[in-house]
Amino acid sequence: MIRVAVAGATGYAGAELVRILAGHPEAVLTVLTSRQYSGLPFDRIYPAMAGVITRQCETFDVESVCDRADVIFTALPHKFPMEIIPGILERGCRVVDLSADFRFSDPAVYEAAYQPHTAKELLSTAVYGLSEVFADETAGAKLVGNPGCYPTSVLLPLIPLIRSDMIDPATIIADSKSGVSGAGRSPSLNTLFCEANESFKAYKVVAHRHQPEMEQILGRIAGKDINISFVPHLVPMNRGMQTTVYASLAEGVGGEAIRDCLHEYYQGRRFIRITEDGRPPDTRDVKGTNYCDIGFVVDSGNRRLILMSVIDNLVKGAAGQAVQNMNIMFGLAETAGLTSAPYPV
Amino acid sequence: MIRVAVAGATGYAGAELVRILAGHPEAVLTVLTSRQYSGLPFDRIYPAMAGVITRQCETFDVESVCDRADVIFTALPHKFPMEIIPGILERGCRVVDLSADFRFSDPAVYEAAYQPHTAKELLSTAVYGLSEVFADETAGAKLVGNPGCYPTSVLLPLIPLIRSDMIDPATIIADSKSGVSGAGRSPSLNTLFCEANESFKAYKVVAHRHQPEMEQILGRIAGKDINISFVPHLVPMNRGMQTTVYASLAEGVGGEAIRDCLHEYYQGRRFIRITEDGRPPDTRDVKGTNYCDIGFVVDSGNRRLILMSVIDNLVKGAAGQAVQNMNIMFGLAETAGLTSAPYPV
Amino acid sequence: MIRVAVAGATGYAGAELVRILAGHPEAVLTVLTSRQYSGLPFDRIYPAMAGVITRQCETFDVESVCDRADVIFTALPHKFPMEIIPGILERGCRVVDLSADFRFSDPAVYEAAYQPHTAKELLSTAVYGLSEVFADETAGAKLVGNPGCYPTSVLLPLIPLIRSDMIDPATIIADSKSGVSGAGRSPSLNTLFCEANESFKAYKVVAHRHQPEMEQILGRIAGKDINISFVPHLVPMNRGMQTTVYASLAEGVGGEAIRDCLHEYYQGRRFIRITEDGRPPDTRDVKGTNYCDIGFVVDSGNRRLILMSVIDNLVKGAAGQAVQNMNIMFGLAETAGLTSAPYPV
Amino acid sequence: MIRVAVAGATGYAGAELVRILAGHPEAVLTVLTSRQYSGLPFDRIYPAMAGVITRQCETFDVESVCDRADVIFTALPHKFPMEIIPGILERGCRVVDLSADFRFSDPAVYEAAYQPHTAKELLSTAVYGLSEVFADETAGAKLVGNPGCYPTSVLLPLIPLIRSDMIDPATIIADSKSGVSGAGRSPSLNTLFCEANESFKAYKVVAHRHQPEMEQILGRIAGKDINISFVPHLVPMNRGMQTTVYASLAEGVGGEAIRDCLHEYYQGRRFIRITEDGRPPDTRDVKGTNYCDIGFVVDSGNRRLILMSVIDNLVKGAAGQAVQNMNIMFGLAETAGLTSAPYPV
Repeated sequence: MIRVAVAGATGYAGAELVRILAGHPEAVLTVLTSRQYSGLPFDRIYPAMAGVITRQCETFDVESVCDRADVIFTALPHKFPMEIIPGILERGCRVVDLSADFRFSDPAVYEAAYQPHTAKELLSTAVYGLSEVFADETAGAKLVGNPGCYPTSVLLPLIPLIRSDMIDPATIIADSKSGVSGAGRSPSLNTLFCEANESFKAYKVVAHRHQPEMEQILGRIAGKDINISFVPHLVPMNRGMQTTVYASLAEGVGGEAIRDCLHEYYQGRRFIRITEDGRPPDTRDVKGTNYCDIGFVVDSGNRRLILMSVIDNLVKGAAGQAVQNMNIMFGLAETAGLTSAPYPV
Repeated sequence: MIRVAVAGATGYAGAELVRILAGHPEAVLTVLTSRQYSGLPFDRIYPAMAGVITRQCETFDVESVCDRADVIFTALPHKFPMEIIPGILERGCRVVDLSADFRFSDPAVYEAAYQPHTAKELLSTAVYGLSEVFADETAGAKLVGNPGCYPTSVLLPLIPLIRSDMIDPATIIADSKSGVSGAGRSPSLNTLFCEANESFKAYKVVAHRHQPEMEQILGRIAGKDINISFVPHLVPMNRGMQTTVYASLAEGVGGEAIRDCLHEYYQGRRFIRITEDGRPPDTRDVKGTNYCDIGFVVDSGNRRLILMSVIDNLVKGAAGQAVQNMNIMFGLAETAGLTSAPYPV
Repeated sequence: MIRVAVAGATGYAGAELVRILAGHPEAVLTVLTSRQYSGLPFDRIYPAMAGVITRQCETFDVESVCDRADVIFTALPHKFPMEIIPGILERGCRVVDLSADFRFSDPAVYEAAYQPHTAKELLSTAVYGLSEVFADETAGAKLVGNPGCYPTSVLLPLIPLIRSDMIDPATIIADSKSGVSGAGRSPSLNTLFCEANESFKAYKVVAHRHQPEMEQILGRIAGKDINISFVPHLVPMNRGMQTTVYASLAEGVGGEAIRDCLHEYYQGRRFIRITEDGRPPDTRDVKGTNYCDIGFVVDSGNRRLILMSVIDNLVKGAAGQAVQNMNIMFGLAETAGLTSAPYPV
Repeated sequence: MIRVAVAGATGYAGAELVRILAGHPEAVLTVLTSRQYSGLPFDRIYPAMAGVITRQCETFDVESVCDRADVIFTALPHKFPMEIIPGILERGCRVVDLSADFRFSDPAVYEAAYQPHTAKELLSTAVYGLSEVFADETAGAKLVGNPGCYPTSVLLPLIPLIRSDMIDPATIIADSKSGVSGAGRSPSLNTLFCEANESFKAYKVVAHRHQPEMEQILGRIAGKDINISFVPHLVPMNRGMQTTVYASLAEGVGGEAIRDCLHEYYQGRRFIRITEDGRPPDTRDVKGTNYCDIGFVVDSGNRRLILMSVIDNLVKGAAGQAVQNMNIMFGLAETAGLTSAPYPV
């Protein structure tokens, strides 16, 4: 059994890691850390887990954690992971970091969007953990920067098509919509029930920090700089993220070529499902799962491709993909611990 | 007092007309018709209205209705209005039709999207009731085709900019999101609580019948054919519609020019509010009101304009704009009956 | 015109006061105070109000406020009102206090539930503003303690029956359910969207501070001490409160007597609607209105009465009843400013 | 492996059975029947299941189904099961019926609430499958009548206390609240999103067919007739059911005795969790699980006990308990297939 620690276990992504790992056939939770709730049983914070998780939350102590874990998931706000991860790696533990700290290969890009980086030397060895795309690198990684939720939903439908030059990369627009859990568990006015319920709006229009993350990866795939227009919106629901991507089709490319390209690229990848006949995927169908469902429609009059993807922002967009990465890092079946059946309603 | 009949009073748009007209200072409701609930008091169907509306629903009889009304709102599914409106107009009543039947000047466009038109002769005299844009024609109209909800939310931000050549009309993409009330009150699987709640998805991708309606009006403004990509989505909330429009900026046009253009065009129009500093408008802020709030952001790297608009699909997107059109037709203040203050939450 | 100040205008109850008063035919808003947002325009906090309310928020200064207002609504957390109200009354202004500070005639009861009272001398002159019950006292009052939302929903159905000895007061159980806006606008974990959505639970079981408030008034009506069991629950919706009351019927009392008693007591009171044939009232039907809808069913096998009431917790449960009380204090029609038609959906 | 058929697989309870059984370590789904969707792949109806369930829906044919199944779950509207179950039993298959058809031992009680019973001869052999209470009878049963959702939530907290004479059975009031999925997947006005959302109301007050079901079992436990007052309410959420029960304490009984009684009765029963210190249980904490969480508070002033229970109406209230019963019937671990960890949000 792989011994697993979750640092930041009481945030939504951390708790979702705990949920998934509690049912993982090859992993055992050995450490849960939480600054805010140190000393309290985890099920005091999440009574849903009574009888399932009996462990207490503790303060993060690198020595003590590394003694008891083979891999550590850092589900902490950015800036914290870069402070503790060097020490973890020195002690021989592997890390899947759910923050942005190790998603960028160019520190300047990170620093423009976040703040000064204090562990730049690790950036070149960190692997961007978009599992279906970078599985090979991940297999040998000691440190994985787990992708953001928006980038996951934007990159998965786009990458095969960019790679095969099927769309014009200068025309990409990504219009994304996220459930409220993406904003985390810290009390704030904007995420109060009465503020988010019966409301729909855009936010951080072409100013969200996930945009440079997407552009970095798209550029790496394309072999040249790509700038996109990314607009996130907030949906009154707990979980789920939907992205509609617009891009001009390359000359001569039609619906069949798009379909073949997606199917071929994701052949055998259990968590990617391409919908049939252009049926728009629904966030409901991936809730609680590690699936990314992808659909598309060709707007032939305008020679435009409309790609749609849905994920659960806390699973494929965070904790689920993190576990998938752990599976890959440790040579397990990619799907281990991630196969519970979706809810019908 | 203007005597008003509502045909189809028990659908959501019809009932919203009843709500608004109940508080209109210059109108009095004299007839409510309903096929399904004929003979029942309106407040049996909408108990909210107990003590406010005491009238019974009746079957539509053109003779009887026209005797008692100066204007008739037809809040019926398309196809029904075209059958009864000729008879209404003959009897000297005016009509605001909330269906699609009289929104198109070219019957071929209507027939391609809907079904054969049986009152084509009226299409040339019908006015497209986008109140802030076509108020002059509306003032003299006997028959107004009230705009669809999606077209209202897409056209209001776009028209001033198209008119002033500030964007490239070949690049327009409209990504819209609607609350569930837009689907009406007839029971169907897709609009069941458990199907729509905790769900977000696109539907009728570049295949919605509101798209040709938008293109017709944009083309009229531009003086040439315009094709757009329109993708509607369903949001788990009762009321509200948000649209994010993407378009390439014309050469030399920047944020200031856009702002000036919008402000100038809508100067003095009480129901259009331009947000400051690119703040994205929120459907919550227009719930229950006739406002259309518009915001925009310039994506300078990509030379793209991002326009955002929000309306209440049942008010500015249906019943509210219909009453605004009645006000204009009868020479009343445009805002009469439409000034109740918005809800804070 | 009555000049009106709202102290605490940016909380939900305060903002709802602003909404209602903005449409009041005989009142004019002259002062809005807010500690947190002093110096900012009200519509910066509530963009919904852009174009409707142009006033800025200011710090509360008793001298300055009283110079500009005939009546002050104090929509502040308890403890604050008792500190400023003596000074307001001295300056000849009248007050409707939406906190608990002046709802209790016996300071010991207040102090047991809240904290030491620093303006006890005013308690005997303050009137408990349950409008339909204590209108006569309210008419002459300088200071009204506006009822809590739960007490309003529990007392209105019960008082006529207690008064007429139709139920056994020793058997009263009130099972209440509230929308989330009752918890206010301060960020807290429990009222985050993701915590309250898709969740239902009881809280403060027989330990809510509104229970002694109810018992005080029930006891006053009955002429003897009454103890009830009160259990509040939280519902995932913005507005609305439903209460189901259970009590044993007095000997010989049946459904007809109950119906007659309710109808007689509330005869002519526009805001109380008794549903027909035991139809359970729905919070949806009173949303945004000052109505209290009441229904009942006799459980004859068990000789028990089941009373159901619904209100909008922010209107009849707070701001609406407060305005109703102002109307009564100033000799206006009780319904002034409170007649906007309910929403169908 | 136990071969399992689900009759009525496309309703919400049926689909939830499919979800649970898809992950059951000792069961294999061999037949899914659906009248409405016969001939279609199950994942066409529930796209969430794409890649998980590849089976087609078929028409129910008793011969064919019994050839391929050891046990059949009948998730059909009442009246249908009684027509097919005799034939199933004759062929040696076992049955867990999720309808009301085999929950009553006295056919007269069933017929008063439903309609004539056409398989009365089976009622005496059918076992009421409240798993924690009637496990012994269930172990040997060929036919289990799976309890209704409301009865499950009411009976589980009450039975230990009735059995130990800790409360006065003449004083029981059960105030229950259910998510909308309890109403099923057939389109109807009341369960439309816009009708159920932002709404809370009681329905079928002391007239719900689950009330005689509860009374039958309570009477069996008590050894005498028990009549209760049962009032169900509808909550705007998908899943979850909460019940608050009120009853007078027997003389001399206090909180400690109640706690001991509950803990002792449910000792070792994994799916019953008693909350500590009177914390009210939250439906959120049991969503998607087979748990029933129970809390209680003693209202000592009134000598009343307040019991609170929460279940997921589709799991412990339907499909989960049905699988638990199958486990018991086949001598498996009671928890087999029912141990997936709860969601944190």
